Amino acid sequence: MGKQAKNAISPSRAEDYPMWYQEVVRESQMAENSPVRGCMVIKPWGYALWENMVAAMDEMFKETGVKNAYFPLFIPLSYLEKEAEHVEGFAKECAVVTHHRLESGEDGGLVPAGKLTEPLVVRPTSETIIGESMAKWTTSYRDLPILLNQWANVVRWEMRTRIFLRTSEFLWQEGHTAHATEEEARERTMRMLDVYTEFVETCLAMPVVRGRKTASERFPGAVDTICIEAMMQDRKALQAGTSHFLGQNFAKSSHITFQNADKQEEYAWTTSWGTSTRMIGGMIMTHGDDDGVIMPPRVAPAHVVLLPIIRKEEDRRKIMDYTNGIADLLRGKRYHGRKIVVEIDDRDIGGARNWEWVKKGIPVRAEIGPRDMANDSVFVARRDMGTKEKKGVQREAFINTIEALLDDIQTNLFDRAKRFQKANTHEIDEAGAFYDFYREEGAGGFVMAHWCGSETCEATIKQDLAVTIRCIPFDSRTEQGKCICCNKPSSRRVLYSKAY
Amino acid sequence: MGKQAKNAISPSRAEDYPMWYQEVVRESQMAENSPVRGCMVIKPWGYALWENMVAAMDEMFKETGVKNAYFPLFIPLSYLEKEAEHVEGFAKECAVVTHHRLESGEDGGLVPAGKLTEPLVVRPTSETIIGESMAKWTTSYRDLPILLNQWANVVRWEMRTRIFLRTSEFLWQEGHTAHATEEEARERTMRMLDVYTEFVETCLAMPVVRGRKTASERFPGAVDTICIEAMMQDRKALQAGTSHFLGQNFAKSSHITFQNADKQEEYAWTTSWGTSTRMIGGMIMTHGDDDGVIMPPRVAPAHVVLLPIIRKEEDRRKIMDYTNGIADLLRGKRYHGRKIVVEIDDRDIGGARNWEWVKKGIPVRAEIGPRDMANDSVFVARRDMGTKEKKGVQREAFINTIEALLDDIQTNLFDRAKRFQKANTHEIDEAGAFYDFYREEGAGGFVMAHWCGSETCEATIKQDLAVTIRCIPFDSRTEQGKCICCNKPSSRRVLYSKAY
Repeated sequence: MGKQAKNAISPSRAEDYPMWYQEVVRESQMAENSPVRGCMVIKPWGYALWENMVAAMDEMFKETGVKNAYFPLFIPLSYLEKEAEHVEGFAKECAVVTHHRLESGEDGGLVPAGKLTEPLVVRPTSETIIGESMAKWTTSYRDLPILLNQWANVVRWEMRTRIFLRTSEFLWQEGHTAHATEEEARERTMRMLDVYTEFVETCLAMPVVRGRKTASERFPGAVDTICIEAMMQDRKALQAGTSHFLGQNFAKSSHITFQNADKQEEYAWTTSWGTSTRMIGGMIMTHGDDDGVIMPPRVAPAHVVLLPIIRKEEDRRKIMDYTNGIADLLRGKRYHGRKIVVEIDDRDIGGARNWEWVKKGIPVRAEIGPRDMANDSVFVARRDMGTKEKKGVQREAFINTIEALLDDIQTNLFDRAKRFQKANTHEIDEAGAFYDFYREEGAGGFVMAHWCGSETCEATIKQDLAVTIRCIPFDSRTEQGKCICCNKPSSRRVLYSKAY
Repeated sequence: MGKQAKNAISPSRAEDYPMWYQEVVRESQMAENSPVRGCMVIKPWGYALWENMVAAMDEMFKETGVKNAYFPLFIPLSYLEKEAEHVEGFAKECAVVTHHRLESGEDGGLVPAGKLTEPLVVRPTSETIIGESMAKWTTSYRDLPILLNQWANVVRWEMRTRIFLRTSEFLWQEGHTAHATEEEARERTMRMLDVYTEFVETCLAMPVVRGRKTASERFPGAVDTICIEAMMQDRKALQAGTSHFLGQNFAKSSHITFQNADKQEEYAWTTSWGTSTRMIGGMIMTHGDDDGVIMPPRVAPAHVVLLPIIRKEEDRRKIMDYTNGIADLLRGKRYHGRKIVVEIDDRDIGGARNWEWVKKGIPVRAEIGPRDMANDSVFVARRDMGTKEKKGVQREAFINTIEALLDDIQTNLFDRAKRFQKANTHEIDEAGAFYDFYREEGAGGFVMAHWCGSETCEATIKQDLAVTIRCIPFDSRTEQGKCICCNKPSSRRVLYSKAY
């Protein structure tokens, strides 16, 4: 871990944030662009992170009674036609399957053959097809609630893609529930947002603002969309999860009816909620520094890397035995239920080895050289503290306190991001100051400002500044004020920001 | 659990095995046909089984150093053209994406628009695209081995489909590894078959025969294909997993090269191996009886269902408290690492309730009525013993011995299937007897017979009897004999069977 004047990632965040992001992803070996337009290859280091995220969320879903299921990849075109709003929403740019066979063409190459009578769309969401099943499975109030979730790949044909943030194919979960009463469905909508909040804050260490979308930012067809919004280090917002109360709208278009206890036919009340691999992009942009990704320990693909330093070949055996001994003891422990994952990297590639792990964002690195071994110690660096803070720690203490060290890193990441979010959230009351704030070079952040409730004002701000109302925060207190756009009276501040 | 003269599934296995299978699947609520041709909806009870199978296999894979990754859903057409054998193998019948947008057509409906310059195929396997990545990631011998696995959905356009056994879309895992030496790749091929064997035998309780495929039954492009074959209750074989040693063939077509320690460029040695949701069909056909599915406890979606019997409304509270108390104690225990999953079904739907759980195949059912409670006992039925054997068990004993009971069921299922396989495996030495055996009404099974090694003999038997060589068993001993087809000398018996 020799000195290095420059940082590992170029450009830095300050120099060019979007380019920094691309470089960080590449250097972390988490994912890369594939030869297929707009689709990514998620490499083992990135996929292990996703697996940990899935495991944590999945357990939380199941604790609330949700069950997983799997629905077909393909959606018949006629399903999309049934729901005009649905198509307007996101189904227009999608992959369309028109043939089911390949034949040798005239030039010897392969050509599509076996034209389908009805084209199939690769699911941009499974909403319509899950709706059809729910309708089939629901006869009586006794069949409700139905609490379903699906982990799957979906495709939305994107013209400009960025790994994790916007790709044509991505991995996600979509939850769909049907209930006998409005109250129960509304409770479920909030409960799932609570689950998302807990997951994002405690596992991804990303502080969020919770609130309600305005009518124009709502999910197509939803009566109410609630969300969590996080702040990236360029001070833009990223929506980290949404939960929708769909009223009876979706039940009506999908014919989800049931007989109530009085033998009367009623439409069910439904909800849906989702998160995706996009969260990984958000996590990277929340914690990463100019040396690369920083993985929160709760979801990190591995917790600790041991880096034996073998200067003389005759020391190898001794140092490797010492290293393996430490690894075995660490692996016998658990951190928040998950076995501590230890990597040992004994490649003889000089300083590149250490920098590779820095860029991958592993929470703890421990060098083990002949001198460390002689002192029965290891030389420890924690990823959240930059590359300068390192220290010798007695072997036994290192092993015994590893959970506390990981917890400290996890907490530090959250606290740091929370401080950043707070420092970059402002109350602004004057239109001039508001416009100046978002037009100033290099400025940005969350602004809590008054809004009269008019869609025109919302649209004006969006048009002028590319700033949107991210949400009406749940904790926004009632107070008298004037709309930042039209100056008319307003009783509550909303959260404005530029956004991903 | 009143008397029921008839069985729950009609027709019985003996009456019509294929129809029995369909009914069993339907009645188990594991999966159903979807409105999309050839695609299934995997319902919560079936998907939870798959999740348990995935978790068990995934852990075993990772213990051998394999890492998961994710590759694009779409394969460019040109990739398939590169590998003639690949296309011949399985890529001809596939879903072809030709457009990336939907537009309103003249009649107001949606029509495909935005024609792609190069059509994309929905992956029938990710082999070619994983090969491309491996080529990119491999420079030096230090980059090897690469040990990858992917859990994903794949599509092969099937004309005649059967849930789990053959569907256009199915879920699977495909492992792909690249090595610096032939020896290492061959070891990996066998090691993954060992993993499959262990999983299928210990978790699915399905005894298998391990062996090598003949040249004509090999995976296209493979140097060697080894497999595990299981026997269904109609005495046909079902291939439950395959592992392929690809030599340098695949590395050559995908350009996976590396510089060895002597700085010489070499092609890597690769393997691939896979299993799919088809295994679920195999599991059902191995253990199911005329009352429905029987779930092996190791992978069962739930282990125990408690069925409170509430005859008088004033007893409800007391009986439910008693039931919940038992559930809590059971849920505090683990069976082979997994928390014991307990369902409580207090629906007031008469005998249908019990039969529903029988058909779903839950390992243990326990009724709890006022009299049971008064005796501080429960009335226990184990699914593997048919519907007749039930007995009262003291509550405490029931809770304390639940793991032993589950293990006993697991072992019993395996032993029963093993006895069945053994009873239906025969050595036959005469062509006449061999032909009679497979032509006799209602007969069938595995036949260990001599084979001279000629593809012509293999083809003749297949042509005449629709019987194939499932494998050359590893444990088939060397002995002098005569080919069952041509009478020429042979030194080893092979495993013949009709197959799924």
